[in-house]
Formats: sequence, C-alpha cells, structure tokens
Amino acid sequence: MKKKIVVCTDLGPALSLLTLRDDLDVVVWPHAVDTECPRAWLLENVQGASGLVVCFKERVDGEVIKAAGSGLRAVSTISVGYDHLDLPLLASRNVQVGYTPDVLTDAVADSAVMLALMASRRTNLTTSLVTSNAWPAFQWTPFALSAPQLSTTLFSPKRTVGFLGFGRIAQAVLRRLTLGFGVSDAIYTPRPEAPPQVMRDAELLRGLMPNLHSLRAVDMPTLAADSDFLFVLAPGGEATRHLIDESFLRRMKPTSVLVNNGRGSVVDSTALAKALKEGWIWGAGLDVVEEEPHVGVKHVLPAEQGVREKCVVVPHLGSATHETRAEMARLTVVNVLRGVDGEQMESGLDLGRWQ
Amino acid sequence: MKKKIVVCTDLGPALSLLTLRDDLDVVVWPHAVDTECPRAWLLENVQGASGLVVCFKERVDGEVIKAAGSGLRAVSTISVGYDHLDLPLLASRNVQVGYTPDVLTDAVADSAVMLALMASRRTNLTTSLVTSNAWPAFQWTPFALSAPQLSTTLFSPKRTVGFLGFGRIAQAVLRRLTLGFGVSDAIYTPRPEAPPQVMRDAELLRGLMPNLHSLRAVDMPTLAADSDFLFVLAPGGEATRHLIDESFLRRMKPTSVLVNNGRGSVVDSTALAKALKEGWIWGAGLDVVEEEPHVGVKHVLPAEQGVREKCVVVPHLGSATHETRAEMARLTVVNVLRGVDGEQMESGLDLGRWQ
Repeated sequence: MKKKIVVCTDLGPALSLLTLRDDLDVVVWPHAVDTECPRAWLLENVQGASGLVVCFKERVDGEVIKAAGSGLRAVSTISVGYDHLDLPLLASRNVQVGYTPDVLTDAVADSAVMLALMASRRTNLTTSLVTSNAWPAFQWTPFALSAPQLSTTLFSPKRTVGFLGFGRIAQAVLRRLTLGFGVSDAIYTPRPEAPPQVMRDAELLRGLMPNLHSLRAVDMPTLAADSDFLFVLAPGGEATRHLIDESFLRRMKPTSVLVNNGRGSVVDSTALAKALKEGWIWGAGLDVVEEEPHVGVKHVLPAEQGVREKCVVVPHLGSATHETRAEMARLTVVNVLRGVDGEQMESGLDLGRWQ
Repeated sequence: MKKKIVVCTDLGPALSLLTLRDDLDVVVWPHAVDTECPRAWLLENVQGASGLVVCFKERVDGEVIKAAGSGLRAVSTISVGYDHLDLPLLASRNVQVGYTPDVLTDAVADSAVMLALMASRRTNLTTSLVTSNAWPAFQWTPFALSAPQLSTTLFSPKRTVGFLGFGRIAQAVLRRLTLGFGVSDAIYTPRPEAPPQVMRDAELLRGLMPNLHSLRAVDMPTLAADSDFLFVLAPGGEATRHLIDESFLRRMKPTSVLVNNGRGSVVDSTALAKALKEGWIWGAGLDVVEEEPHVGVKHVLPAEQGVREKCVVVPHLGSATHETRAEMARLTVVNVLRGVDGEQMESGLDLGRWQ
C-alpha cells in the first residue's frame, strides 16, 4: 500500500519531487495556488497520512494529529516559525517536524535595506506627489524634500546603525550597509540573559573592516540615542512586547529611521504614530505590524495624515522572492520525504526536550 | 565699495560663509527657502553684481549677463548640469563658472538601489494592499506576491546587473550591489565612440572580487537580454534619446527590472508602459521621466492600471539628501567666493574651448 502525503500549500515546481515518486499517494489541496487550505479539507484528507505539508496558516493541533492517525511520521512546514504546530504531541508520537530556517536570511535583509531607504527618502510622500499631479507645480529648492542619507561620503563619513535582535538577518543587513553603503559604526542591544559575544563580534568586525569602525553591545537608551538607522529584528512574544515604546522613541534622533522586519508586537504602534507625527523620529519602514493583518484604513500607521507620509507598511513580504520561496518549497519537500522514508530530515526541529 | 553677490537660491547654513564677510554686499532672494526665484527679481537685483549664485531653474542668458554688467566675475550654480548657463558669453567676459559635480554620486547611487528594490518587490502594489485594507483578506500562499531577488544566495548564486552609462554613479551602484548584495556579474554598453576601458575595468573588477566574477562591455542587444537589473545612468541629449525603446525592452527578461536615474529622455515612456503592461519586463523604478515634471494623472506610467502597480516614479530626488545638498551648497558658496576674490574656483568649469 502506498504511503500518503497530504499537501495543504503551494509548492511550485518542487511538488514534482513528490508526484514523481510511484510509491507515494500525494493528495494536494486543489486550490493551493491562490487560496489557503480550509480546515475541513485538511481534517478530511489527513486521515491515514504518513506525511503532512503545511504553511504557518494551518494549525496542526491535537484534532489534526489524531485525525491523521498513528501512521503519521512527518510534518513539514514551509516557514521559519512553528507556533502553529503542537510540538509536544508530535514529539510524543515520534513524528519528525521539518521547517525552513536560514534560507530566507538574504531576502529579508534585502527587504530591510529597502525599507530603510524608503523610510529615509519618504517615498510614500514623494511618489504621491507624482500620482497626485503635484510635480509640475513643485518649487525646486536645494533642500526641498531632502532626507537623511544612508550611505557615508567623504564629507559625511560617520553613520551608526543599531539592531534590536542581532542574529543572522541582522548580520546580513550589517554586511550590506557596511560593505555596500559605507556605514561606519554598529551597535546592538543583546537579550538581558545573553552572555557577551566578544569573540563573535571581534570576528564580525574583522570581516567588515576597514568600512566598519566599531561594533558594540549597548543598553536600550544608548541604542535609541545613537542609531541613525535602527533595525528591529527581534522575535515576538511577551519578552519583547513593546520594547520600542514611547520612552525609547523619545530618545531617538529627529533624523533617525526605524525599520521593523522582526515582529510587529515589538513596536508600540500608537507610540510610533505619535513619534512620527510629532517629529521625534524621521520615518519608519515596517514589514510587520502589531495586530497584522488587521491593518488598514482604520489603523493609525497607514491611515493617519501626518503619519502615513513618513511610514511605509508592506504586508509581511520580507522573504517573498521567487528564489527564496522556491528554496523553502524544495526544503519542505525534502523534509517530508526524508520523514516518511524514516531518514533524518535535512532541516528538522530538535524535539528532544519533549521526548 | 563692497562687492555685490546675488543669491537666487537657498543655501542653508552655508549662506553664513557669505554673510559673515564684511566686505561683501550679499543680496538674497527673500523667499529662497520655498519658492523659486522669479526672473524679474533676478534681472532687477543682478545689476552691478560681482558674483551670482543660481540653481538649474535660473537661466543665466545674455539678458541676465548684460544686466549684471562688466563687473561680473563669478557665476556659481548648485547643480551638476549647466545647460541653463550661456557658457560662451560668460567665457568671452572672463567670468568663472562653478558647479557641483561628484558630490552627489553616493546619494544618487543610494536612490538607484532603492528603486531597484522597490521595483522588484513592487511596493506600489504591496503598500496599497495595506492602505486599501486588503491585508486582512489576503490569502497567504508561498508564491503570492513573490518577486525577483536582488541579492544572491547559496541556492541562487548568479545575478547580472547591466548599466547604460558607466560613469562614477554607475560604479558606485555596482560597489553597493556586489559588496553589499553579492551580485556576481556586471555588463555595460559604452558610448559608440568611446575607446575600450580595459585597464579601468580590470582595476574595478579586482577591487570587487571575489564577489564580482565578471565585468564586460557588451552591445545593446546583449545588455537587454542578460541584465537581471538594468540601470540607466546615461546623460540626456539627442545621442541617447530613446535608446531604451520597444525593441530593446522586448529583448529583456520577464523577471528583469529597469531603473532610470540618468535622464528621462533615454527611455521611451510609451514603450515602457507597454512592456510593463504586457509583462515583457517585471518592473521599473524611475527618478527621471520623459517630459518631467509634466508627469501625473494623465501620464501613462504613474496613471494607467496594469502599469502603475509595477512602476515606481519619484520626482527627480536622487541627490536630495541633507548631507549632499549641504555639501553642494558649501561648494557653491566657496566657488562664488573664490571667483569674486579672483582666485581659482574649487570646482570650476573649464571654459577653455570658448576662450
């Protein structure tokens, strides 16, 4: 009897790695290309599955896992996060869990640099001048619509970038900014419980010299006060909720730019709107927003006049490139195949703490 | 008697370098901060001037030069271009002419990278999903709204960038893309009459290795066919008019992105709109547009549905940063001071061909 693999999400060309296998019965949610998988379809089709492929939208909880039955060997999600999976229950049933970390580092780092440039150049405002037909009457003066510059130059040689969350993506952003744009100094605030990373920082600094002059761990008030461009790349959860609040934003420079590619909950949206409106900071570029996706005409950041001109909001698309999503799909398929074949996944979660 | 300097444009803090000099009579257009200088004011006030400071909006033609009189020693423009100045007449009167090249290289290169990222990620479309309240109903699927990726990765290691116009700004863009984003290959099309730049290219390549694998001069069809991201940084004029036309655009890849920070006239707007609408190319980011500033609700690029989602238009603000405009102002002031003092300008045009 063929092993059954249930696929709830669009895998692009990588799906053929599954369908080419004669020994598998591959059941795909038929509207995966443009519609999220309904829970009813998942519950009905998951019965008897050896492998299950999901995205972060499908909750794999007790109900789904029990519906699958005792033959389930692998759950593979096309995401970095795994909050949607009941890991203790999967571990207790010896189900391997695959996910896709690391591969999206460069795509998200590109997005962070884009948002930094868009927020500093205030593209919401400048592009709307064109579309609203205001360009012909625009009075050109040397400082009209001028903005803080990301890159350093001979006549402006110092630029400090700050990071809240200094993992792989932050380091990829730093590489772009130092080697590409000549940013001269970097600071970050480590998690309170984290041990000092002296060796790692020395190695990073060595690799980015002579462009980068300094890389330092600092406290939150210093991070706020010294950053020309501040990148939030911290994970979500209670420990980081509203770390960027009114008192932090009040300490920032009026020419500073805030970018969030981490989690929306880290930044207090109401405080940010106030900071933008009252000019405590220059601009903001957000790929993630508190309470997303419920962000729109009534949300203070994209909607309010005096704020929207300074605040770019993109709907959580940092990793949304053809190349990266294709690699995430490939890895997701390889993970589920390894799992149903009883081999170790290429990128599997360590479930040891629950076993 | 004090020497008179007439200032038509906003110089920011650099103005004090003029006003602090007791031996000068500095006459400033009183609304310079937000309004272009009217020609009538210029003609009235320029009489008897030793020095004249303008931006590209003030035509310094025979009428102005004659109104100034024989004491005019220096014209200093806060711009790279000098089409607005009657150079032969100024040369014949031994007037020095100052301008501000080079200083804006980094600001414009930043803008070019920003436009490349915005056009590839289609930010007109994605940000409008948020402002139009479409985010809550957005169906997340792995390839929804995915885009070509600028940076290379281990699983997508080749990216070719092309340049039409390969001067200082293009080279500054290339440095950002190779060292910052891991772009692997670069091509450019030289002017037809230009001698091969073998030594320069070898030196550039050496400086960008190992990230950059190749740098080659190619013909226009190859530039079109091979560029993943194409940067137009050519000057205007008849020689470059519509070099990017329908036949060029038809040769480009459907995933390719066009960026123009050079001159609007190089790109045929009608052909570009067609290319975007019919999917010959992926997207476009424009800081300059044919017929600017008359670009708005009736112009095909920002206005037409099926085009505007793929085409970012910024109203010629590539160099508009605080740092760069301040340096342009400083240089403009130093130039006019040197000129009225009978010294050589820090950055003066060579008028030898007219003398």
